[in-house]
Amino acid sequence: MSLFVQKYGGTSVGSFDRIEAVADGIARTVREGHRTVVVLSAMAGETNRLLELASLVSAKPDQRELDMLVSTGEQISIALMAMALHKRGVAAVSLLGFQVGIETDGHHGRAEIQNVDRRRLQECLDAGQVPIVAGFQGLSARGEVTTLGRGGSDTTAVALAAALQADECQIFTDVEGVYTTDPRIEPKARKMDHITFEEMLELASLGAKVLQMRSVEFAGRHRVPLRVLSSFKEGEGTLIDYDGRCHSGHRVTGIAYSREEASLTLAGLVDQPGVAAALFSPLADAKIAVDMIVQAAAGEGRVDLTFTVPRGDLALARSVIEPLMANFGARELIETSDICKVSVVGASMTHHTEVAKQMFEVLGREGIKIHLIATSEIKISVAIDEKYLELAVRSLHSSFGLGED
Amino acid sequence: MSLFVQKYGGTSVGSFDRIEAVADGIARTVREGHRTVVVLSAMAGETNRLLELASLVSAKPDQRELDMLVSTGEQISIALMAMALHKRGVAAVSLLGFQVGIETDGHHGRAEIQNVDRRRLQECLDAGQVPIVAGFQGLSARGEVTTLGRGGSDTTAVALAAALQADECQIFTDVEGVYTTDPRIEPKARKMDHITFEEMLELASLGAKVLQMRSVEFAGRHRVPLRVLSSFKEGEGTLIDYDGRCHSGHRVTGIAYSREEASLTLAGLVDQPGVAAALFSPLADAKIAVDMIVQAAAGEGRVDLTFTVPRGDLALARSVIEPLMANFGARELIETSDICKVSVVGASMTHHTEVAKQMFEVLGREGIKIHLIATSEIKISVAIDEKYLELAVRSLHSSFGLGED
Repeated sequence: MSLFVQKYGGTSVGSFDRIEAVADGIARTVREGHRTVVVLSAMAGETNRLLELASLVSAKPDQRELDMLVSTGEQISIALMAMALHKRGVAAVSLLGFQVGIETDGHHGRAEIQNVDRRRLQECLDAGQVPIVAGFQGLSARGEVTTLGRGGSDTTAVALAAALQADECQIFTDVEGVYTTDPRIEPKARKMDHITFEEMLELASLGAKVLQMRSVEFAGRHRVPLRVLSSFKEGEGTLIDYDGRCHSGHRVTGIAYSREEASLTLAGLVDQPGVAAALFSPLADAKIAVDMIVQAAAGEGRVDLTFTVPRGDLALARSVIEPLMANFGARELIETSDICKVSVVGASMTHHTEVAKQMFEVLGREGIKIHLIATSEIKISVAIDEKYLELAVRSLHSSFGLGED
Repeated sequence: MSLFVQKYGGTSVGSFDRIEAVADGIARTVREGHRTVVVLSAMAGETNRLLELASLVSAKPDQRELDMLVSTGEQISIALMAMALHKRGVAAVSLLGFQVGIETDGHHGRAEIQNVDRRRLQECLDAGQVPIVAGFQGLSARGEVTTLGRGGSDTTAVALAAALQADECQIFTDVEGVYTTDPRIEPKARKMDHITFEEMLELASLGAKVLQMRSVEFAGRHRVPLRVLSSFKEGEGTLIDYDGRCHSGHRVTGIAYSREEASLTLAGLVDQPGVAAALFSPLADAKIAVDMIVQAAAGEGRVDLTFTVPRGDLALARSVIEPLMANFGARELIETSDICKVSVVGASMTHHTEVAKQMFEVLGREGIKIHLIATSEIKISVAIDEKYLELAVRSLHSSFGLGED
């Protein structure tokens, strides 16, 4: 008898047919003798409907009040699911975040879970009940309703799995698992049976939007075995675990990408200690997510410093940086929008050089210019013109032998 | 500086225009220097929408889960209203039942408020904030979300007013106050400026659906001054207070009515002690609300016993009574549907006889047959054929001089 936490996202409970189908799946798990905790998102479209209501009342609604408003979405899902399970003879009990002791910090709209009081859940499980928990929400120490930000239901599921030491946290989505790359770009993309936590983290953060990145980090910290699987189609999905072995047999696990990037280059900075800190502190204060950072010597004791930001933050980043240029003797500020990032990810990428060589060769052969290169232990990322994104993903996917067969 | 609890019902917040109008009204109260607590219902139609969702999932949804589901309606209202007030520079804070310590018993769907912990509200008021509280909901001692039943937002408002010892509990509705009778039946019906608690209780329970009866009882127990007024039109409304004086100057205050009644008569019961108890206990067990009860001698040591029930419960009442008839020697069970109840109400009805005489004369003059008569200290009720309801109400209203001028 295992203990599973099952999370179903918005499209999985997006219609009455879907609710019935998911209820069938939960009932099956229960009949197989497993203890089960369910976490639900709002029905697809509901959160947007609620945000639309808010926008009709206020151009700048308060974040605390938005949390109060949108947290109703999950409340509706759990009540309806409990009813659907009762119909199947399953003793289900819907529970809100505060009722299962999900305590968060006070950051409305992007709260972080601080603590989970497992008592109520344990009581339900001991009584043979299936707790149906509202994802995405919690209560701050001050007693305020908070939400965890978009995709936060994944984090709820992982947090409950950690608190209950569940055997598996199963994230049911509209895809069959984690793929070697985005199947919408490369139809030959292959579903992986296993992936390491580190690889998943890189894939999630690089734009393979199967799981919310925070939930993967949370799972990693608490070593919660995560499984991504489809709520529409039977299958084993992809298990994310922690042993670090090379499951795939390939050096490279997957090709990730991120659209709508932009870069700023400060040309001819005087090369002196403290320059980077002086530039990046105000960017951090402005909540701009700087991603790739590259510095290269420009001769004469000067350096060129380039970094990427989400395209939507480009104008803000420029306005932060421009007033500082004179302080550091920068000669020019060069801006590139219309770029994207493509990354080759692999936990067993022991020979960076070889993978890098192959990656650059493939891109060169296709005539794709590389603007920036950044590496970490398990990935190599390049910034290229966004118009080449699909071509680059497909070429790399094929070259590293990731496709089916 | 007064402390007001203001409650706005579903039609008062039924659209975005209405929310803006109500926000204007609240902002005005606050600017006048009054401390204000607001209680809201769900937007008109929302509760029914949610019940419809439940009916699509289950033919017999669990009441606990229905509470979980429908309590989202008020949550949406309070968040939107807080946003609308922020836009007007009012420091509003939306709060759920559990956040303001509304503790109820565990009867889902018809819970009763057991206790209100005034601390959070008092903190808000001391900080110059306007608490916007979700009506209709609470939390049981076991930590379950409960609802107070239809119209329960009135009760929430009264309970908060009692806990805070508010100067007035103002119930904003779609009517301008309490009328001498239903203006849809008698256009000459007059809005009353004052009414006693006892009169209001009779009017509410007899079908003048301005206030939920339980909220009036609650107000009476805690001596909370209640004011009913319109959220659509400026005005003083009707103040319900506790001094028992004859405000109106009339012996009779109003004409109430209740449609869709039915009666059952047990003819020729053997007149012995305990008969009534033996008949009415099983009716009570079946949750049938017996209203008027009349017993009259039928000669030969026998009596005829008649009582009224809501028409929808007639078949059930018959099935409860029929098997018992033989035990008490009843000769016949006579059923009358298509009747209604019309009542003359007045706290200063010191001379029952005179009012009764006038009432029977008026009805007789119009050719209306009286099936049953029942009296209490402040009212006389008759059961008549429902087809005469409007005629009876108008004739009595006019005869007792209740109209404008």
